[in-house]
Amino acid sequence: MARLPHVVIVGGGFGGVAAARGLRYAPCRVTLLDQHNYHLFQPLLYQVATAWLSPADIATPLREMFRVQANVRVLLGGVTGVDPALRQIALAETRLAYDFLIIGTGARHSYFGHDDWAPAAPGLKGIEDALDIRRRLLLAFEAAESSQNEAERQAWLTFIIVGGGPTGVELAGAIAELARHGLTREFRMFDPATARIVLVQATDRVLPTFPPSLSAAAEHSLAALGVEVLTSREVKALDARGADVGGKWIAARTVVWAAGVTGSPAAAWLGVETDRAGRVRVGPDLRVPGRSEIFVIGDTATCNAWRGMPAPGLAPAAKQGGAYAARAIRAALAGRPAPPPFHYRHYGSLATIGRQAAVADFGGVRVRGAPAWWLWGTAHIAFLISVRNRITVLARWLWAYLTFRRGSRLITGAGLLRTGGR
Amino acid sequence: MARLPHVVIVGGGFGGVAAARGLRYAPCRVTLLDQHNYHLFQPLLYQVATAWLSPADIATPLREMFRVQANVRVLLGGVTGVDPALRQIALAETRLAYDFLIIGTGARHSYFGHDDWAPAAPGLKGIEDALDIRRRLLLAFEAAESSQNEAERQAWLTFIIVGGGPTGVELAGAIAELARHGLTREFRMFDPATARIVLVQATDRVLPTFPPSLSAAAEHSLAALGVEVLTSREVKALDARGADVGGKWIAARTVVWAAGVTGSPAAAWLGVETDRAGRVRVGPDLRVPGRSEIFVIGDTATCNAWRGMPAPGLAPAAKQGGAYAARAIRAALAGRPAPPPFHYRHYGSLATIGRQAAVADFGGVRVRGAPAWWLWGTAHIAFLISVRNRITVLARWLWAYLTFRRGSRLITGAGLLRTGGR
Repeated sequence: MARLPHVVIVGGGFGGVAAARGLRYAPCRVTLLDQHNYHLFQPLLYQVATAWLSPADIATPLREMFRVQANVRVLLGGVTGVDPALRQIALAETRLAYDFLIIGTGARHSYFGHDDWAPAAPGLKGIEDALDIRRRLLLAFEAAESSQNEAERQAWLTFIIVGGGPTGVELAGAIAELARHGLTREFRMFDPATARIVLVQATDRVLPTFPPSLSAAAEHSLAALGVEVLTSREVKALDARGADVGGKWIAARTVVWAAGVTGSPAAAWLGVETDRAGRVRVGPDLRVPGRSEIFVIGDTATCNAWRGMPAPGLAPAAKQGGAYAARAIRAALAGRPAPPPFHYRHYGSLATIGRQAAVADFGGVRVRGAPAWWLWGTAHIAFLISVRNRITVLARWLWAYLTFRRGSRLITGAGLLRTGGR
Repeated sequence: MARLPHVVIVGGGFGGVAAARGLRYAPCRVTLLDQHNYHLFQPLLYQVATAWLSPADIATPLREMFRVQANVRVLLGGVTGVDPALRQIALAETRLAYDFLIIGTGARHSYFGHDDWAPAAPGLKGIEDALDIRRRLLLAFEAAESSQNEAERQAWLTFIIVGGGPTGVELAGAIAELARHGLTREFRMFDPATARIVLVQATDRVLPTFPPSLSAAAEHSLAALGVEVLTSREVKALDARGADVGGKWIAARTVVWAAGVTGSPAAAWLGVETDRAGRVRVGPDLRVPGRSEIFVIGDTATCNAWRGMPAPGLAPAAKQGGAYAARAIRAALAGRPAPPPFHYRHYGSLATIGRQAAVADFGGVRVRGAPAWWLWGTAHIAFLISVRNRITVLARWLWAYLTFRRGSRLITGAGLLRTGGR
């Protein structure tokens, strides 16, 4: 008997998982490859970075997700290259032949040509990033407690978040809540509520993809939490001592980067054209031009799938792309015609700022304040992958809401060794 | 006004925390110094290493524990030396003067002169150790799934635990349960239940500090879980490929060290005498001979405080030592006579082997099986520091008990890069 066609999916994010699930009943073998052994619920990653949640609360082992889908094999490993002519992908020690290839490897931070800023201003894409940021935030307060003079203490108690999109807004709000409410009475040499949190945005308002009225609501909520919002200002220089924000130097020992993303190395593997943000230009069927067996989905690709514009870099866009690729492969395997071009359906945008404050935009309907916050919480709990994670996250939020305290304030990793140095 | 006397406590473990609490109402300033920002509930550390619990479930920030005790200042930092003549301790960048010093820095692994075994056989003392072991265990199953030949796969599926004390027994039981029940149907190239778990003990029975009948019960429970218990056998050689156990080579890519401990560097700081295991020899009042203002407690010290024998290296011994040191300092501050010599009160020993299997020894009363297991669970929940951790651990245990699944199976850290190498 001939072996079943082999579909290789690179990336176990929202797109890759949706693609694998879409192939559940298809007559094919599926290999799902990821560098990590878990699927990450990225929308809550900032809560790991700010000590609300533990990593395991928002990550589910990929093997557990696919244990009962017998045609999926999960493999841990990184891709080193793709050979489209031979239809093979190269891993560190072996090669995998494919009949269909789906690439959904997400995006990485972009420092807009200032890659030297990376060590001083980490971005937030994966669990390791979140633990690194958590370590820096918590160590800053520890260093402030040990500081020998007031200028040094002030620099440790100043936090700059670069980028006013949803990640930057959510991070700034969560850091402000940590400082204002989460550390009360824990330090003897200063009041953590005096910490200065600065959110820098290059354009004239935060959340630029939201309607202006919601941007204004978000800025109001941030101000109420004591976040300084600096719009229309660019970061011109940045190092471990602070940043030049629109020509003015702000001394700060902790800077977080939430400003830009760039495509993953997928374009380089394939040797194909990208847009300015490094995303692979795919056709309206999400296939690489000239390679009908290769799909690129989610953040990794770009095509005008949303009313003539690129789909946004959100989880639903990746999920829909993955499901579309699976549908197209099912059609090809069955000898049916290909489905009509991919169209992204936008259900809405949500961003949370703090306790009882959020903004939600559903096209015509705009919600802010406490109702948006409840909506945000409900949606995020509902979309968590496993029942266990839903229960855990709900319990942790309830606990934090009632007590104002954060559960996961551990400084782990190489943190301590770095206190002196950076 | 003269400043209040300064008590410096080095180490935020069971001993240091008990000492700080014992000084709650004393007329003194207390500085509690630790290399980590959390107090760790070490008895459950093996459950982090085997993916039952997340680090934050068994660790509580020291600042949170002492936020309402106004005379305690928590400092994050490591000691580099002690100057008993000047009554100062040296940190990386500063010095702290003390009137009284309490050292409770615990113990480290001892490889009995084979320190070169450390990279291949990590021990389990802190959160970082537990995450390292978790990473190795989970990566071994991943590597088995990718293995190109059967001998290599077998080596990845063989786990050796060196040392049959409580830690070794609990680790072996938990690894066996992970392999037998926690990973069912998740791999396509092998059945994880076929994993070989080997527990090596140099003396003629596991749990040598327990009565022989309980050792036999533990060995029986381990055998029921499929653990090979090799008693009266020593590890003669060990590297990343396996170990020579009593003259026979066992190929294994994962070895965990649970065999020996040695005192922390406290003796070197103080320049004083130690026993063979590196513990500081203190007087019956836990003070360093000739230095009545320095106390050494818990695992870091040794004195014949238990019916003429040294107290065991258990949490209650550290707690009682810390409380005793605080009592002695309170007496000194009040000008009262010193309390009578320290006596350790033994409440019992407990070790768990797996689902519904444990052993408990309360002097005359010996319990095994399900009743001991319930006792073990209740005691450990009750002794967890914070209410939040009690609720979380209880919920996670309940979940794992009902579903057989582990919640924290994330491979984090530098893990992936090492797969090829080791």
